Amino acid sequence: MSTVSFFTPVQEQVKLVEDRMRAQADKTHPDLRAALEHLLSAGGKRIRPTLGLLVGNMLGAPLEKLITLGASVELLHTATLVHDDLIDGALLRRGMPTLNARWSPPATVLTGDFLFARAAKLAAEADHLPLMNLFAETLATIVNGELTQMFSSRGLISRENYYERIYAKTASLFEMTAHASAMISPADKSMAENMRDFGYQIGMAFQIVDDILDFTGEQITVGKPLGSDLLNGLATLPAIYYAEANPNDSDVLTLPTGGWTNAENMARLVENIRNSDASEKSMQEAQKHIDRALQILSQVNACPERESLENLANFIVDRKI
Amino acid sequence: MSTVSFFTPVQEQVKLVEDRMRAQADKTHPDLRAALEHLLSAGGKRIRPTLGLLVGNMLGAPLEKLITLGASVELLHTATLVHDDLIDGALLRRGMPTLNARWSPPATVLTGDFLFARAAKLAAEADHLPLMNLFAETLATIVNGELTQMFSSRGLISRENYYERIYAKTASLFEMTAHASAMISPADKSMAENMRDFGYQIGMAFQIVDDILDFTGEQITVGKPLGSDLLNGLATLPAIYYAEANPNDSDVLTLPTGGWTNAENMARLVENIRNSDASEKSMQEAQKHIDRALQILSQVNACPERESLENLANFIVDRKI
Repeated sequence: MSTVSFFTPVQEQVKLVEDRMRAQADKTHPDLRAALEHLLSAGGKRIRPTLGLLVGNMLGAPLEKLITLGASVELLHTATLVHDDLIDGALLRRGMPTLNARWSPPATVLTGDFLFARAAKLAAEADHLPLMNLFAETLATIVNGELTQMFSSRGLISRENYYERIYAKTASLFEMTAHASAMISPADKSMAENMRDFGYQIGMAFQIVDDILDFTGEQITVGKPLGSDLLNGLATLPAIYYAEANPNDSDVLTLPTGGWTNAENMARLVENIRNSDASEKSMQEAQKHIDRALQILSQVNACPERESLENLANFIVDRKI
Repeated sequence: MSTVSFFTPVQEQVKLVEDRMRAQADKTHPDLRAALEHLLSAGGKRIRPTLGLLVGNMLGAPLEKLITLGASVELLHTATLVHDDLIDGALLRRGMPTLNARWSPPATVLTGDFLFARAAKLAAEADHLPLMNLFAETLATIVNGELTQMFSSRGLISRENYYERIYAKTASLFEMTAHASAMISPADKSMAENMRDFGYQIGMAFQIVDDILDFTGEQITVGKPLGSDLLNGLATLPAIYYAEANPNDSDVLTLPTGGWTNAENMARLVENIRNSDASEKSMQEAQKHIDRALQILSQVNACPERESLENLANFIVDRKI
């Protein structure tokens, strides 16, 4: 399954989304335009706008509003990445230098703020109050999740905390994108609710797979050291499965009291997790979310967009990056 | 003229605004609640919510929406202060420790983001699309202004740049507050436009007076060194008047090429500006904005709120902090 199979039908529309994003820096300082250009050229799969366009096209939403929504969602996503990379001191993302690798921290903070501002402006331009409410609520969810992660998630081995975390970090924006696309279409509330759930399910799966790739991925593809979350004190699903199966593992036992700061022990723990069935079990859990997503789609009348959404859902568990 | 004369009529309503602000951290992490509490207890004159309440009450806007708007505006203002203080490395504001003096930069970045998110959520709750558009546009104006200041204002002696800067930094939010309060009232468009202009005029005056106090204020009241803007390379109105009257002053001549980094020369320049009539001329300019604001008010039917708004306008040029 390649990206192409779901991306192609909306490829031209995704380009319009990118143009719309680029236009947000018009009439601003040249350095800011350059920063946005850099962020856009760093690419990404544009999976969120693609999701929004496919759902919206399927349900007959007006294209102009879908473009606006897609640009808003992707800019919001980009803004959170800019602040995240600054906070983590990350110098590379997808093999490209991050903004903070080139700019001062103050300029990076403000560029993130500017992207938030433009994302909010675009959301407002969609001219739909419930959508605007949803946008603002999602932004608050994402940021509160990051704060919770910073203050109380390190060293914690807790499924509840993990699911809350990946909802805030990833699934909330997928959920919002699919939900909002349905809201601006002529579809009824029950369809909008189904699309919200569809976005939620593939968003949860997306982050679980990301967390699996952090253990199994090729370093060069992921662009960071294997087990980087654990080295930051964050126990993701594979680590949780391993800990549940090996409650007396000495490295697991040290985690809650700061053992994750010991690089040598963590290298051993990462290796043990890699050699266990933790990733497989995690992948089964991701697949359950995808199965649920596909089940939701099966209730929609067959159409090319439905097929593309099925491909998108399947891509999420099949992808290697 | 004391603060009391315009604040008292809406004192109880301002408390409701503060309660509404405080409630934004409900169900969030305890540390975040503590941070918001700290920011709220640091006080401030709440001049923006007061402006919004007075304009809105005068024009018959529903109180609940005015409270929501006031909380949104003040949270947006607070969010920009949090990021500003981080960027400037400021450790005190109004004599109280800033958030970044107590918290790590990452936590401070995210707390600012959270306040942006909640401000946007509150603006959306006012349930009025043009207001939401205005909110998002104002946020973009503020952030773009900060970026422009960072990248291209240092050492520049330019009225045009100065007026753009203080509009972005201060007047835009005053303008939005007065405009939005009128927009959610039954008043017609021409009244809303007048209120927009009223907010603009007192906002411009407010920042000019702030910039005068940076030269004339008691250090202990202002909470930072005299001439702190100049020490950061920012030529405000008093410095511009002085430079215009003394184009060959050796310290003035060095400014565009980075002379503001020389603390000794700047101390001399600050002293020369203090001993000149630059502050008086600047104050006359602030007074012109207030005169224009009072003229706008004179077209409104006499009522207690109009009188309070007159007092508020006069307070802005009379204040010492």
